[in-house]
Amino acid sequence: MSAAEIHPDVEATAERIASMEVRGAAAIAEAAAAGLATQAEHSSADSPEAFRRELRAAARRLVDTRPTAVSLPNAVRFVFERTDGDSVAELRRSTRDGAAALRAQLDTAQDDLGAIGANRLRDGDTVLTHCHSTDALACIEAAREQGKSLSAIVKETRPRKQGHITARQLREAGVPVTLIVDGAAGRYLDDADHVLVGADSITADGSVVNKIGTRSLAVNARERDTPIVVAAQTLKLDPATLSGHTVDIEHRAEAEVISDDDREAIGEIDVANPAFDVTPPRYVDAIVTERGQFPPESIVMLTRELFGEGPVRPWEQR
Amino acid sequence: MSAAEIHPDVEATAERIASMEVRGAAAIAEAAAAGLATQAEHSSADSPEAFRRELRAAARRLVDTRPTAVSLPNAVRFVFERTDGDSVAELRRSTRDGAAALRAQLDTAQDDLGAIGANRLRDGDTVLTHCHSTDALACIEAAREQGKSLSAIVKETRPRKQGHITARQLREAGVPVTLIVDGAAGRYLDDADHVLVGADSITADGSVVNKIGTRSLAVNARERDTPIVVAAQTLKLDPATLSGHTVDIEHRAEAEVISDDDREAIGEIDVANPAFDVTPPRYVDAIVTERGQFPPESIVMLTRELFGEGPVRPWEQR
Amino acid sequence: MSAAEIHPDVEATAERIASMEVRGAAAIAEAAAAGLATQAEHSSADSPEAFRRELRAAARRLVDTRPTAVSLPNAVRFVFERTDGDSVAELRRSTRDGAAALRAQLDTAQDDLGAIGANRLRDGDTVLTHCHSTDALACIEAAREQGKSLSAIVKETRPRKQGHITARQLREAGVPVTLIVDGAAGRYLDDADHVLVGADSITADGSVVNKIGTRSLAVNARERDTPIVVAAQTLKLDPATLSGHTVDIEHRAEAEVISDDDREAIGEIDVANPAFDVTPPRYVDAIVTERGQFPPESIVMLTRELFGEGPVRPWEQR
Amino acid sequence: MSAAEIHPDVEATAERIASMEVRGAAAIAEAAAAGLATQAEHSSADSPEAFRRELRAAARRLVDTRPTAVSLPNAVRFVFERTDGDSVAELRRSTRDGAAALRAQLDTAQDDLGAIGANRLRDGDTVLTHCHSTDALACIEAAREQGKSLSAIVKETRPRKQGHITARQLREAGVPVTLIVDGAAGRYLDDADHVLVGADSITADGSVVNKIGTRSLAVNARERDTPIVVAAQTLKLDPATLSGHTVDIEHRAEAEVISDDDREAIGEIDVANPAFDVTPPRYVDAIVTERGQFPPESIVMLTRELFGEGPVRPWEQR
Amino acid sequence: MSAAEIHPDVEATAERIASMEVRGAAAIAEAAAAGLATQAEHSSADSPEAFRRELRAAARRLVDTRPTAVSLPNAVRFVFERTDGDSVAELRRSTRDGAAALRAQLDTAQDDLGAIGANRLRDGDTVLTHCHSTDALACIEAAREQGKSLSAIVKETRPRKQGHITARQLREAGVPVTLIVDGAAGRYLDDADHVLVGADSITADGSVVNKIGTRSLAVNARERDTPIVVAAQTLKLDPATLSGHTVDIEHRAEAEVISDDDREAIGEIDVANPAFDVTPPRYVDAIVTERGQFPPESIVMLTRELFGEGPVRPWEQR
Amino acid sequence: MSAAEIHPDVEATAERIASMEVRGAAAIAEAAAAGLATQAEHSSADSPEAFRRELRAAARRLVDTRPTAVSLPNAVRFVFERTDGDSVAELRRSTRDGAAALRAQLDTAQDDLGAIGANRLRDGDTVLTHCHSTDALACIEAAREQGKSLSAIVKETRPRKQGHITARQLREAGVPVTLIVDGAAGRYLDDADHVLVGADSITADGSVVNKIGTRSLAVNARERDTPIVVAAQTLKLDPATLSGHTVDIEHRAEAEVISDDDREAIGEIDVANPAFDVTPPRYVDAIVTERGQFPPESIVMLTRELFGEGPVRPWEQR
Repeated sequence: MSAAEIHPDVEATAERIASMEVRGAAAIAEAAAAGLATQAEHSSADSPEAFRRELRAAARRLVDTRPTAVSLPNAVRFVFERTDGDSVAELRRSTRDGAAALRAQLDTAQDDLGAIGANRLRDGDTVLTHCHSTDALACIEAAREQGKSLSAIVKETRPRKQGHITARQLREAGVPVTLIVDGAAGRYLDDADHVLVGADSITADGSVVNKIGTRSLAVNARERDTPIVVAAQTLKLDPATLSGHTVDIEHRAEAEVISDDDREAIGEIDVANPAFDVTPPRYVDAIVTERGQFPPESIVMLTRELFGEGPVRPWEQR
Repeated sequence: MSAAEIHPDVEATAERIASMEVRGAAAIAEAAAAGLATQAEHSSADSPEAFRRELRAAARRLVDTRPTAVSLPNAVRFVFERTDGDSVAELRRSTRDGAAALRAQLDTAQDDLGAIGANRLRDGDTVLTHCHSTDALACIEAAREQGKSLSAIVKETRPRKQGHITARQLREAGVPVTLIVDGAAGRYLDDADHVLVGADSITADGSVVNKIGTRSLAVNARERDTPIVVAAQTLKLDPATLSGHTVDIEHRAEAEVISDDDREAIGEIDVANPAFDVTPPRYVDAIVTERGQFPPESIVMLTRELFGEGPVRPWEQR
Repeated sequence: MSAAEIHPDVEATAERIASMEVRGAAAIAEAAAAGLATQAEHSSADSPEAFRRELRAAARRLVDTRPTAVSLPNAVRFVFERTDGDSVAELRRSTRDGAAALRAQLDTAQDDLGAIGANRLRDGDTVLTHCHSTDALACIEAAREQGKSLSAIVKETRPRKQGHITARQLREAGVPVTLIVDGAAGRYLDDADHVLVGADSITADGSVVNKIGTRSLAVNARERDTPIVVAAQTLKLDPATLSGHTVDIEHRAEAEVISDDDREAIGEIDVANPAFDVTPPRYVDAIVTERGQFPPESIVMLTRELFGEGPVRPWEQR
Repeated sequence: MSAAEIHPDVEATAERIASMEVRGAAAIAEAAAAGLATQAEHSSADSPEAFRRELRAAARRLVDTRPTAVSLPNAVRFVFERTDGDSVAELRRSTRDGAAALRAQLDTAQDDLGAIGANRLRDGDTVLTHCHSTDALACIEAAREQGKSLSAIVKETRPRKQGHITARQLREAGVPVTLIVDGAAGRYLDDADHVLVGADSITADGSVVNKIGTRSLAVNARERDTPIVVAAQTLKLDPATLSGHTVDIEHRAEAEVISDDDREAIGEIDVANPAFDVTPPRYVDAIVTERGQFPPESIVMLTRELFGEGPVRPWEQR
Repeated sequence: MSAAEIHPDVEATAERIASMEVRGAAAIAEAAAAGLATQAEHSSADSPEAFRRELRAAARRLVDTRPTAVSLPNAVRFVFERTDGDSVAELRRSTRDGAAALRAQLDTAQDDLGAIGANRLRDGDTVLTHCHSTDALACIEAAREQGKSLSAIVKETRPRKQGHITARQLREAGVPVTLIVDGAAGRYLDDADHVLVGADSITADGSVVNKIGTRSLAVNARERDTPIVVAAQTLKLDPATLSGHTVDIEHRAEAEVISDDDREAIGEIDVANPAFDVTPPRYVDAIVTERGQFPPESIVMLTRELFGEGPVRPWEQR
Repeated sequence: MSAAEIHPDVEATAERIASMEVRGAAAIAEAAAAGLATQAEHSSADSPEAFRRELRAAARRLVDTRPTAVSLPNAVRFVFERTDGDSVAELRRSTRDGAAALRAQLDTAQDDLGAIGANRLRDGDTVLTHCHSTDALACIEAAREQGKSLSAIVKETRPRKQGHITARQLREAGVPVTLIVDGAAGRYLDDADHVLVGADSITADGSVVNKIGTRSLAVNARERDTPIVVAAQTLKLDPATLSGHTVDIEHRAEAEVISDDDREAIGEIDVANPAFDVTPPRYVDAIVTERGQFPPESIVMLTRELFGEGPVRPWEQR
C-alpha cells in the first residue's frame, strides 16, 4: 500500500502554523480543522480505511508543527469525534461538517468568554497586559461595549514586542494605553486593578503556560495583591497533562533576542530564547473561559468533564 | 557684586554628566571632583569669599545635572570638607588635593569591594545580572582572579540594553555568558546561585534604588530563595534620605522604549520610561561595599557613621 | 392589561428583609419562599400567564431588597423550578409545595452542616468568631451535643456589634465566652484553634463574601497558621458569579459608625460603612456546607453541579 | 442468637495488620479483602442474615486495627458493594469475586500511577524522598523504564528509618542514592528538582496525611520553590473526611524513639512518637493517582465521584 | 529618719498620668519632668542625701503609674543625669534646669520628626491612620505646611475611639477625612499610599508596641505592599528591652468594651481589653524619629547610642 | 633558624578540640587561650621575636583544628591583643594574663546572656530546642532561677543525638521534657512559645550557622509565627565574614548517619553528613548575647564595634 498523501494545501497550512504566520490558539485550531476539511474534500481514497489513513496522516502533520499549541490536538480531536460514516462520501461530508461546527463554536467561545471576563472589570479600572491575546482583548472589548471606561498598561513583551499589537488594538477599542518595557511592570502594578493575560495552555495541575515573562509578572502581582486573571478558551485546556505529561517549552530563534551585529560586537555568547514559561496555580486568581470563570485548581475537573479521563490520540494509530 | 562665574570646562563636565556620556557612580563622582579642581585652578577670585562663592556655584551646577546620582553630592561634600585655607591660594590647593584624594579612594574602593564580593562566590557558581554595574563586575572579576570558574546569565535590560555591555565585559573576563530577555529571568533563576546587581543609591530605610526591573527580579529571586546581592560603594549611600527625603525617579526619553515609526503605526499612546525602581530591604540579602558586606537594614548606621546625622548641603548657601 | 399586583403581605415581607428585621440567609430564603406562597395563595389571576406574571413581579420585588443576599434569588429559583401546572389552581398548589419543600430542606441543611462542622472541632478547642452566623453557631452547638467542651473568643464586630448576639447564644449553649474589640483579634489568634465564620455568599472563583473585617481576620489567621473555616449552606453559593459578575458591596447607614453628636463635634468628614468584604480562597482552609466540607477552590464545581452552567434569572422575563 | 464468629485466619490477618507486619496501603487493602474472602469461604452461616452478620463482624475486626489506614475501610466498602445474593452460596461467591476484583485493580493502579508520575520526571532530575512509599517508588521505576536517568536524595526518616528500605529499592532500580538525616533536607532541597512522597490518606479539604516529617519538608520545599508531589492511589482518598471527620494520628511505641538504656541515663522524660502529620493543600503541587494528577484542592470532587456524597459505613450496622 | 515625702502636686501629676488625663508620650514625659522639678522646688530636705532620696521616691511614684509608657523612665533618666551639686540648693536648681531642658528638646523633637516624616509623603497621597498619635499627626501637618495636599482614612480605634480625636485634628489641618470602623481597614488599604501610626515604645528587637490593632493592620498592609511607617520620638525607645525584658501589656477597664446594660443582657462572659499589641519588625518599613528615619532592625543600635548598653534604673536605689 | 616548637600540651589541646572531646564555643575558646598560656609558660625562646614566632605557631595549630568554630580565632585574637612587652618575661606574663582575662569574661558572659535570655521567657512557657547549646540552656536555667516554671520539647538532633544531653540537663534544671524525633518538630511548634537554639557562628550578613536542621526548623517556626531566638555569646560573631568570606560547612563521618551493617545491607550509596546549616536573618527574631539582644540584621554593627572593620589574622604572619 502506498503512503498516505497529504494535500498541498494542508502542507501549506502546516507551514503557516509552523512559521507563526497563523498565530493564536483559535486561529490555529480553525486552520487545523480547515486543513482536515481540505484533506477530506480532495481525498482520492478508494476505501474508508484509506480515507481515515489519509486523515490521520494530515492530522499528524498538523499536530507536529507546534508542540505547545494545545489547541491543535484539541481541534483535531474535535473533528475526529465527528468524522463518521460507512463510505468515503459520508466520511468526507462529516469531516467537513465537523470543521464547520468547530469554527462556529470558536466564534461563540470568544464572545462568551469576553462577556464573562468583562463582568469582572469595573468602570474606571486599569488593566495591565502581557503579550497579545485575543481572549484577553475580548474581555476588555466586551467591557467597553458594556459602556465601561478602562485604561491599559501594556508591557512591550520582548523579544517579539507583541505588546505593540495589543496597544494598537486597545487604541482601536478606545482604551487609553501606556506602553512600558517589561522590567517596569513591577513599578506599575500599583496603578493596575487587574493583570489580564491569555494562555497557551492550562495543565491538569492548574499551571498556566503562557508567553515568557508571565510567571515573573504573576509573582509580582501577588506580592502587590493585584488579581491576575487568565483569559483562555477551553480549547487551551491540555488533556495530555492529566497523565502527567509536562509541557515542552519551545525555544525560538536567537536572532529574536539580539541582532547579528550586536552579537558580533559582544563576542561568543549563548542566547536563550524560551517562548513560554509556567505559572503555578497559586499565583493565578481566576481563569476565565467561555464556560465561566474558575480557580486554576478546579480546571482539572473541567478538563475531565470536557475531554474525559483517558485521552487517546487517535491520529497516532498507524 | 557680579554673579559667580562657572568655568567652561565645568560647564562641559556638567553637560557630559547630564547627557550620560559620563556614566556610573564612580565616574560621575570623579568627574565632579575634577570639575571642582578645575574651577579652583582657574579661579580669578580676589578673596576667599569670592572663591568659595564660585566653588559653590560650580557645585550647584554639577549637582543639579542628575537628581538621582547620589555620588554627585557625596563627591562634592567630600571635596568641600577638604577645602580649607585663609587665602585663595590655600583654598585652591586644598580643593585640588581633595579631588585627588577622592580619586585615590575611588580606585581603591572598587578593588576592595570586588575582593569582598568575590569571597561570596564559589567556584562553579552561576551569577544572574541586571543592567551594567562596574561594582558588580568587580566582584566577578576578582573571583576570576581568585581562580574561580563562574558562569553568567545576563538580562538584556531594556530599554537601553546595558546587558550587552555587561555581556562583553564578562566575556573579556573569561566568563561564559547566556543572554536572555528581561522576561525570561524568572525561568533562569533556578539555574542561578546568586543575583548580583549594582545600585544607583541606597536609602536610609535600606531600600535599593537601581535600574528599572531590579525590584521585579528581587521579588522573584526571593520566591526562589536565590540570594540577591547588591554591590555598591559607600559613595552610593544617600545621606539625604536620613531626613526622610524620597528619591526622585528620573523619567527618560520615550524614544528609548519605542521607535517613532512603531509609535506612529500604533496611534496615540503614552509611553512611560522610568529609569529606576526601588527594592525594599526585605528582598535583598546583602549589600557589598568597600567597607564590608551589610544587611540592608543596617546600612543606615553606616551612613550615619560616614556622613553624620544632620547632612547640610553646603553648596546651597548663597 | 393592568400591572401585576403584589400582595400586601409580600410587600411587608420585602420591607422586613430590606430593614434587616429578617436577617440571616436561611431566614431570608424562607421568608422569600413564604412570600411567593402567599402571593400564589391570594392570587386572583384569571389565567396561568397572569399568575406567572404576578409571581415574577413578586419575585422581583423580593430579590431587589438585598443585592448581596444570595439566598434570595437561590430561594426564588428553587420555588420557580417547582412551579408547574396548566391551571391557576395547579400553579398555586405547586408554588405552595415548593415553598414548603424549601423550608424542610433549610431545616435539615443547618443540622447537617452543623454535624459536619462539629466533626472538625476537638474537645477542649477554642474557636474565634466574627459577626453572627447561625451556620457557624450550628457547628459549635453540634459539637457541644457531641459532648465536646469548647471555648469561644468573640469579636464584637463593629459597627453593629453582632458579636453580642453571638456571645449570648454561645452562653446559652454552655460555651465560655471572651468578648474582645475587633482590633484585638490579632493578639488572641494564638489562643484559638480555629477561626469560624459564616458567609453572605461564596463566588465562583472561591472568594468568601462576608461581614466587613473577615478578610483582615483571615489574613492574620493565615499568618499565624490558625485554620479558618467558613460555615455556609449551599444556598450561599452564587451562580451569578460563574459568569464573572462581581458582588456589589452594600454600603449601610453612616449613623451605624458614628453618632450625630460625635460627628458634629469633629466637623465635616466622610464616613464609609461597607457591610461586607471579600476574602480570597487562599486565606480559607475549608468551607463547610450541608453537603460536606470543601476547599474554596473546588466550590465552583459544586455550584455548577447544583445550579448548572448557564444560570437564567427567570423572574427577569417580563 | 450467638455472637458472629470471626475466622482464625481473619484474626491472624488483623493481627498482622495491627503489628505492621502487613504494611502499605495496597497490601493492607488486599489483606483485608482476602480476609473477607476467607471469612466467606469458611462461613457456616445458615442464613443470608447470619452470613452478612459474620461478614460485618469480620469487617469491623479488620477496620479497627489501624485507625489511620484509610485503605482498610475503602477495601471493605469495595467488597461489600459487590457482596450480593439471596443465598449463602451466592453471597459467598460474590464476596470472593469482589476480593479478587479488588486485587486486580490494585495491581493495575500502581502501574498506572507510576506511568503518570514518571511523566512529570525529566531525564537527569534529582528526586528527594521521605519515608517509604511503593506508590512514589513506582513513579521513579516507571521513569527508569522510560530510559530516564535519575538521582535520589533519601531522608532516613526517623524513628523507623524507612528511608533505608527506600534506598535499597532505589539502588535496585539503578538510581544513585545519597542518604541524609532528616534535619539535612533543608540543605539538600536546592539540589532536588522534585520532592516525591506517598500518603497515608488524603482528606476532603485537600490535606495530605503522611509519615511524620512530611509537613516540615513541604513547608521548606515551598520556601525553595521545589515542587512537592504526592503519589497516592485513590484508595487513599478518605470519604469519611467529607463529613468533617478529622484524622486520628496514631502514636506509636516510645521505644522507637529512644532505647531503654539511653532513656534511663537521661531520667524521667516524656517521649512523643506521632506516626503521621498533616500537610495543608497549599504546600502540595500535585497529587498523582492512577486516574491522573490533580491539584490537592480538587481531590474532594474526585472523592465524591468515586465514593459518593454520603458515605455509610455498612459494617457498623449490627 | 522619716520616709521621703512626695509633694502633693507630684501625687496629683501621678494620678493624672494614671487616669490618662495626661496622655501621649511627650506630654507624659514633660509632666514627669515637671513633677520632679516641683518636688525639687518644694523640698525641705536638709541634706543632699535626703534631697536625692525624696527625688527618687517621687521618681518611683511617677514611673509606676503606667508600666508601658516608656517615656516616663526615659524622662526621669534625662533629669537625673542632670541633677548634680553638693548642696540642696544646687541640686534643686540643676533638677529644675534638667526639666526645662527636656521640655525644650521635646518641643524641637516633634517638629524635627514631623519634617522628616513629611518628606516621605508626596502631594496627593492618602494616609491611613490608627488611634491618635501627635507624632504621626506632626508628619501630616508638616507635609501640609510644605504645601502638599493629603487625604486621610481614619480608623475609629475601638474601644476608646481615639480615631475621633485624630479625625478632628486632621480636619483642622485641612485634610479630608474618611472615618471607618476598624474591621474595614483591610478594604481601604488599596486606597492608601501609607499606613502611619505612632508607638508607645520600640523594643531592642525592633518590635513596635502600639495601640491594640496595630499588628493586624501591619500584617494586612504588608500583604498589600502598603508601606507602614511608625512615627516615634527617641523618647519611645525602650532601653530596658536591651536586657531581654518584655513589655507588659496593660489591660484596661472592661467597661470600655461593653456597657453594663449590654453585658447584663448577654449573661456571664469574660471581657478582655488589652491596651496594646506588639508588631514585629518585619511588618514595619520605617521608624521616623527626630534623628532620622530607620529600619526597625537598626533601632537597637540607636538605643545603645542614646542610652548605653547597661541601663541602670537609678531611682530604684533606696 | 629552627622551626618554632609547639608544646606537647598545646598539641594535646588541639587534638582534643579536633576530636570534639572539647566541645562548645566557650570551652573551645577557653582551651585555646589556656593553650597559648601553656605555650608562653614553657617557652624557652631567647628573644621576643622567637617568643612571638612560637606563639603564632601555636595559634595556627589551634585555629586550624575546627574551621567553623569561630570562637577559636576570636579567643586567639583576644589573647594576642593583650600580649605585650619588650622582654620574653613580660610577654609571657601578659599572655598568661590575657588568657585569664578571657576565662573571666567567658564565665560572666554566659551568666549575663542567660539573664537576658531568661527575661524573654514567661512563667508557664514551653521552649522547643534543637541540638545542645550551653548558651541556650543558660537562658532556661536563669529563668528557672527567676522562679519561672517552663516546659521543653527537645528534638533528638540526628545524627549525634545531642538532644539527649539537652534533655538530661533540662531534667536536672527541673524542666519537664518531651523528647521527639527531628521530623516531629513541625507538629509540636504549635505547642511551643519559643524556639531557642545556640549558634556556631553569626555572620556579617546576619545569618546563623548552627547544627544541621536549624534552618528547616526556623522556616517552619516562622510559618507558625513562633519566635525563634538564638543564644550566642559575642565570641560567636565572625569578623571574617565582614569581608565576604563564607563559612565552610564541616562534613563529618558517614558512620554517624548509618551503621556499617545497615549500609552493607542497602548496597552502594552515598551518605552526606554536613554538620551545620545556615539560617538567613529573616527567619530569626532575636539574637541574645551577653551584651543584650539584637535583631540579626544589626549584628554586623556589633561585630564591627567589637572586632573592627578590617580584621587581620595576626597569627598568619610568618
